[in-house]
Amino acid sequence: MHKLGEFDLIARYFTRPVRRAALGVGDDCALLAPAPGMQLAISSDMLVAGRHFFADVDPALLGHKALAVNLSDLAACGARPLAFTLALALPSADAAWLEGFSRGLLALADAHGCELIGGDTTQGPLNICITVFGEVPTGQALLRSGARPGDDLYVSGTLGDARLALEALLGHVQLPAGLLASARQRLEQPTPRVALGQALRGMASSALDLSDGLLGDLGHLLRASGVGARVERSITMQLIAASAYPESPQGLLSPELIDQCTLAGGDDYELAFTAPPALRSAVAAAAQASATPVTRIGVIEATPGLRLVDAQGRALPGHYAAFDHFA
Amino acid sequence: MHKLGEFDLIARYFTRPVRRAALGVGDDCALLAPAPGMQLAISSDMLVAGRHFFADVDPALLGHKALAVNLSDLAACGARPLAFTLALALPSADAAWLEGFSRGLLALADAHGCELIGGDTTQGPLNICITVFGEVPTGQALLRSGARPGDDLYVSGTLGDARLALEALLGHVQLPAGLLASARQRLEQPTPRVALGQALRGMASSALDLSDGLLGDLGHLLRASGVGARVERSITMQLIAASAYPESPQGLLSPELIDQCTLAGGDDYELAFTAPPALRSAVAAAAQASATPVTRIGVIEATPGLRLVDAQGRALPGHYAAFDHFA
Repeated sequence: MHKLGEFDLIARYFTRPVRRAALGVGDDCALLAPAPGMQLAISSDMLVAGRHFFADVDPALLGHKALAVNLSDLAACGARPLAFTLALALPSADAAWLEGFSRGLLALADAHGCELIGGDTTQGPLNICITVFGEVPTGQALLRSGARPGDDLYVSGTLGDARLALEALLGHVQLPAGLLASARQRLEQPTPRVALGQALRGMASSALDLSDGLLGDLGHLLRASGVGARVERSITMQLIAASAYPESPQGLLSPELIDQCTLAGGDDYELAFTAPPALRSAVAAAAQASATPVTRIGVIEATPGLRLVDAQGRALPGHYAAFDHFA
Repeated sequence: MHKLGEFDLIARYFTRPVRRAALGVGDDCALLAPAPGMQLAISSDMLVAGRHFFADVDPALLGHKALAVNLSDLAACGARPLAFTLALALPSADAAWLEGFSRGLLALADAHGCELIGGDTTQGPLNICITVFGEVPTGQALLRSGARPGDDLYVSGTLGDARLALEALLGHVQLPAGLLASARQRLEQPTPRVALGQALRGMASSALDLSDGLLGDLGHLLRASGVGARVERSITMQLIAASAYPESPQGLLSPELIDQCTLAGGDDYELAFTAPPALRSAVAAAAQASATPVTRIGVIEATPGLRLVDAQGRALPGHYAAFDHFA
């Protein structure tokens, strides 16, 4: 691969003994083969300073997040992480920054047995492009296109805290220090739901990861499946962890802010998925086995579109009820 | 994958029917499996505006080059191109630019049967990150580490014309229009030596692609193989196509400029490779079969280091004779 300068820094911070790959960092290509009967699941994400992260973010947190958002795509396919490549544009070769970044990156990689097998470094505006490889038994990948009318609609974990932290960091809302710290961790250190994704193979009829906000991302799944959905706002409003925070003053989080964060927040890196009602106990068991809470937030319907409803099933008016990510 | 806006432009310019991959653009991951007995060869390259290309370059040429430099890495491993992912940061969603870029990119992809299977787009300073996938029979990849003392040292095609064009575009040298056009094509539309790389499997003892300049890149190969080399300057000086250009005025290309371009030029995307002398006729046949000229420029020696010699084998003094890319 085409590397420009700073070879010693690459060797120092990113070159490690090859484990799973037949050939790792340092030749023109890395060599990789899935096990017999397995397909490779492949995803690329690019993170740009000022758009996906604050340029002055702790580099260790950035290293974690850069890989986490890619692992989240593998999770959404039910794939087991294998390896990744890293292409990095840096304004300058800053040893302290690279030490922190590689530490955060490789700690998460090690936690998932995901090996750095190659990449590229160059001088330029800070840009991180990771391509991640996982394996999944042939034909068992979780796709966006399999949701069927009558399926339950679930999300994992919590929603909206990352967006709440972003709103606070941008000065749009004031949060108590403890609440900000807890929400900020969701923004800066998202947990890819890798174990849950694998546990849902053969069970979930469709899945995707939530990176741009629940309603917008659900739209992709619904269109890919040719279906619609009904989502209960009384449930989604409970999914923001901040609402349960003991310090949270009454009225601090307005219903409008909660809707904005939970329904259109972005940066959640949770899974949304569907499964037939007959598999409810199997889904609960998968959630338990992967130590990942899941919540049933609605149901798939034949009529296209996404309908936000109250606890009595009545359509709700308003901005998010008619959310269109592309409008 | 995490896509921010401009979904319709992506659909319009980059989404095509899936061929080889089990699943292409539009889900969280692409799915890909090498054929039985094959390994995947994987390489990532990142191109940054202002560093790897002029920001105002014809986008069709840029699309070609962005994939070409990646295919060149596959060529250097002897791999057959299969597929690639594209991550793209763009200052704005410019339809004319995307039309040209995708046209140049996909024309080269089609010429090599290499399928776009996924990626990411985001707003940011212009940055192109491609990860390319090829397949190679298990154990037959060409590596940098196999050169042995006594092996012949070859390069494919021509060297230095891309650098000559760059020097002219930067105003460092004046070239006749016809010569500039011809050299500029080498800079802007490099030809990845994909067929030659595959033809050299089982024959070349080592190989790599030349992206940063002959002597610097050869240094990687020599260190990886634990050997040295002797390179004949009287041969390398002939490898710049510009020297044979009919309009080329006497004295236009000084020996110093020719050395700079051929030995340390960069952007050549030719292959350098080694093979035992017993395989000279086999190498010639591989070159013929792949319609790619190759030139024997020296020999591998046990003593580490790279020695530039004259036609009588005498060591040459001077800057490039002691070239160290890392100094």
